Amino acid sequence: MAPRTTAGGSAEQLAKKQREISISEFFTKNRHLLGFDSPAKALLTTIKEAVDNSLDACEEAGHLPRLTVEIRNEEDTFKGLDLPSLAEGTGTGNGNGKSNGKSRATARNAPAREERYRIIVEDNGPGIVPAQVPRIFGKLLYGSKFHSLKQSRGQQGIGISAAGMYGQLTTGKPVIVYTRTGPQATAHRIALTLDMKKNEPVVLADDETIWEHDHGTRVEIVLTGSYKRGQHSVDTYLEQTAIANPHLHLTYVNPRGEKRVYPNATEELPESSREIQPHPYGVELGLLARMLKDTKCRNLSSFLKEEFCRVGPKTCEQILTTAELPARKNPKRLVQDDIRHLLDAISATRIPAPPTDCLSPIGESLVMAGLKSGVEADFYTSVTRPAAVYRGNPFQVEVGLAYGGELPGDELARVLRFANRVPLLYQNSACAITRSTLSSNWRSYGLQQSKGALPTGPLMILVHIASVWVPFTSESKEAIAHYPEIIKEIKLALQEAGRQLGRHINRRRREADAAKKQSYIQKYIPHIGDALQEILAIDDAEREDVVATLTDTLERSRKL
Amino acid sequence: MAPRTTAGGSAEQLAKKQREISISEFFTKNRHLLGFDSPAKALLTTIKEAVDNSLDACEEAGHLPRLTVEIRNEEDTFKGLDLPSLAEGTGTGNGNGKSNGKSRATARNAPAREERYRIIVEDNGPGIVPAQVPRIFGKLLYGSKFHSLKQSRGQQGIGISAAGMYGQLTTGKPVIVYTRTGPQATAHRIALTLDMKKNEPVVLADDETIWEHDHGTRVEIVLTGSYKRGQHSVDTYLEQTAIANPHLHLTYVNPRGEKRVYPNATEELPESSREIQPHPYGVELGLLARMLKDTKCRNLSSFLKEEFCRVGPKTCEQILTTAELPARKNPKRLVQDDIRHLLDAISATRIPAPPTDCLSPIGESLVMAGLKSGVEADFYTSVTRPAAVYRGNPFQVEVGLAYGGELPGDELARVLRFANRVPLLYQNSACAITRSTLSSNWRSYGLQQSKGALPTGPLMILVHIASVWVPFTSESKEAIAHYPEIIKEIKLALQEAGRQLGRHINRRRREADAAKKQSYIQKYIPHIGDALQEILAIDDAEREDVVATLTDTLERSRKL
Repeated sequence: MAPRTTAGGSAEQLAKKQREISISEFFTKNRHLLGFDSPAKALLTTIKEAVDNSLDACEEAGHLPRLTVEIRNEEDTFKGLDLPSLAEGTGTGNGNGKSNGKSRATARNAPAREERYRIIVEDNGPGIVPAQVPRIFGKLLYGSKFHSLKQSRGQQGIGISAAGMYGQLTTGKPVIVYTRTGPQATAHRIALTLDMKKNEPVVLADDETIWEHDHGTRVEIVLTGSYKRGQHSVDTYLEQTAIANPHLHLTYVNPRGEKRVYPNATEELPESSREIQPHPYGVELGLLARMLKDTKCRNLSSFLKEEFCRVGPKTCEQILTTAELPARKNPKRLVQDDIRHLLDAISATRIPAPPTDCLSPIGESLVMAGLKSGVEADFYTSVTRPAAVYRGNPFQVEVGLAYGGELPGDELARVLRFANRVPLLYQNSACAITRSTLSSNWRSYGLQQSKGALPTGPLMILVHIASVWVPFTSESKEAIAHYPEIIKEIKLALQEAGRQLGRHINRRRREADAAKKQSYIQKYIPHIGDALQEILAIDDAEREDVVATLTDTLERSRKL
Repeated sequence: MAPRTTAGGSAEQLAKKQREISISEFFTKNRHLLGFDSPAKALLTTIKEAVDNSLDACEEAGHLPRLTVEIRNEEDTFKGLDLPSLAEGTGTGNGNGKSNGKSRATARNAPAREERYRIIVEDNGPGIVPAQVPRIFGKLLYGSKFHSLKQSRGQQGIGISAAGMYGQLTTGKPVIVYTRTGPQATAHRIALTLDMKKNEPVVLADDETIWEHDHGTRVEIVLTGSYKRGQHSVDTYLEQTAIANPHLHLTYVNPRGEKRVYPNATEELPESSREIQPHPYGVELGLLARMLKDTKCRNLSSFLKEEFCRVGPKTCEQILTTAELPARKNPKRLVQDDIRHLLDAISATRIPAPPTDCLSPIGESLVMAGLKSGVEADFYTSVTRPAAVYRGNPFQVEVGLAYGGELPGDELARVLRFANRVPLLYQNSACAITRSTLSSNWRSYGLQQSKGALPTGPLMILVHIASVWVPFTSESKEAIAHYPEIIKEIKLALQEAGRQLGRHINRRRREADAAKKQSYIQKYIPHIGDALQEILAIDDAEREDVVATLTDTLERSRKL
């Protein structure tokens, strides 16, 4: 690894040390960027990446997703293939009873619970063309979602291959992928590893095989992890995934062999999200130049109309006139100054905001339903904001609140964070959602809140952000970056929901007061009756009558 | 950019969309990962990366660093070279009066203050061998620090080239580098850009030139940024850099042309930090396999002794015996199972913790001095913890506290964060330092603190982490990841300093009480005198005498 260097740092000596860093080396050393900094987190991240991909694929293909997630304690020998030395960044090696030794070996830097697990995630999606499998699972920065603006869970082309890399790093075992693209197609079983130096997949085996399913994908990754319960656990993640994806049918088997089924609450797939073109206001000089170079369009006007959203014939003409550029000019022929004029013209032209029907929020009713299924409370509300735009990307914020009931009254409010229907469990303090919640004034809604802290009270806050491109603070996609436009939208949604909560809390307070007053008066009504009877010498019937009338009046006065 | 795709998502259709993502494309779209998410931040990040590199180089070469940082408002034409179209990911284009148009153009998504700036950072370091300049400044993931375990500011090989990329993206202008490696060498002036698709440098010009300095490097980057004052500003960053680097002589010229000089407080370079080998406990199966493959050692025993720290002849023998492997075996010959045995043997062997003299903390006295230069307070204290280890990497925590004086008493405490002497200004809520400060109990030291919040009071907290490898939460190196070992050390340091602060606060309180009591008693002494004079009929001299004695006694009683 680290080359022993001669002391001193002359330019020549420094030059000797300069080296290229492979992307896989980079992420191996910076594994926490990908969410593999602890064995417990590694387990969660691996499952998260696999489930994200499965859901994306199913929805894209229009299949109602049926997923199976299994975490198996891996003590048995891997009946795999005979593999070259691990040094090739590959290889498996049978755990022949050494596995105990192994878990002892890694126990050094980790809780005793650290074990070897086989993660299995299976879906009924469209499957993957076998030729694509190696690079999708065995190469970082490769995927279908990065280059498109579309609301999807995955977007970077890193996640699942990183998970495979981590498994390989800690156990030396390859990723196993079963996939079948349809009843006519034959199923494949592919075993592969990742060459860390080259960031390229190494296929160890690709066999045709029999598979009970017509279509779908199954991925198996063996890794050293730690299975825990609690707020940051796989269990919680899957629970919340079910909340945010009511169309998902999920079967989950934990390492203890306990099976749990989350049936789908609806037969309807979510409104499928559309891919959109970038908005003209979102591009900069360099980006525009790249697009002009890469475009297949033969002339400027078609370039503007086809490569961007919201550019119709009129807008297009307007831009080109301002830029003093001919509509028929070949985009590839633009020189530096033309490009700058074009950019200036774009910014000088009024262009409608990007379309927002490309987003598919969860929806107020389903957010509410999700909360209700999640927690027993007295009061629920939810708000779905109209879509907004940051750096040319449409996004939409949803908020749900649950108050009272079984929620603890003396603790800080609990915040559930979601991005494109994926629950975010870690790095909450780094997240724009948390920031927005902290900096909202909850006192005005009748809650306690101390400076720089979350509100205190029996409150659960759910926030969901849907966008064609979610800006995460790191590749592990655990927190949302602090773009002012996003923070503003979240705060507006929280305020809208907060006001409703405030009204509820006040009503409760007033009702309590009224009830107290009433019971107080009620105590005296009989005595008034008796007094009247004595004074007016009325008979018992009349007295009862008076008492009834008074009680009745009291009732009515309270109702008003 | 985004290819328009046919609807539907069959495996075949999805396959068509699968593409490789170039690392530069990735970071362009995820620019916030590198700290370029806002124009203000872009300005800061660029200067930060350049200054980090300059300081590292100077210290490595043993030169007392003299740096000049200048931010120039760039309205004038760039007298550069005639360049090919930007589309090659290169090019400049003269700003001929269009620059106003340009700033209007970008004003869309940003505060009106957004402008074009030329960032100039110059040092008296060892310079850079001209042949190395292109890749150091024009290629992401290339550098000298990533592959070594050594306390340095840079470590990823991304920062400065990313800054250049951002400049190119927003203004189309190339990075200009002047460098000279010594009085005998000729100075070079190199202009280059980065090819985004290939992540390779494109050299536009490399001229020999005259330069007044014997040795050093000067980098110029033109970018669209926004110059602001305040907590997150370049000014603050440079101020804090001076605090954490008392050996640095810094000259800073801001866009208004205002010049500020921070003279160096000491002529001594910091204890130079040593590079160390990885600790055996820090490696995993995959990593060990890679090391075995890459090593130049001919046999296992020299491999263990030379590639790792803390492995002497005895330890080495012990490991090999446990692993049942011959000392003379060729490392490259080990198969999968041997490697696992070796790893098991390592974990079964007692190996001393890694050396910690490889770290160079700021030191208690200098931390204190830094705080004093930074803020007027009544009380200062500082603590430097002994070094500790996470994932085999040594690290060391320092804490300084300033209390009272001009610090505002009714606000949350201010936290200054440093990593390897670099001030961290953004993402404080994501940082292990903030987490540790929040979760420490400050009430027990006599401060107010509400649940889940920072303490309130006239308090400034400085925390510095020195490590051979600082685990940042993102490539922008703004916050430290939440490794439990690191959080534990920070909290211990805070407690140690906190207790001293607590003693100070209590003493103050006691003194205040005593003073009140004393003044109270003092009021009565004269009357006692008069009374005694009346009763005992003593003369005035005697009365004065009594009064003096009583006052004196009171004084002494207070002193005890």
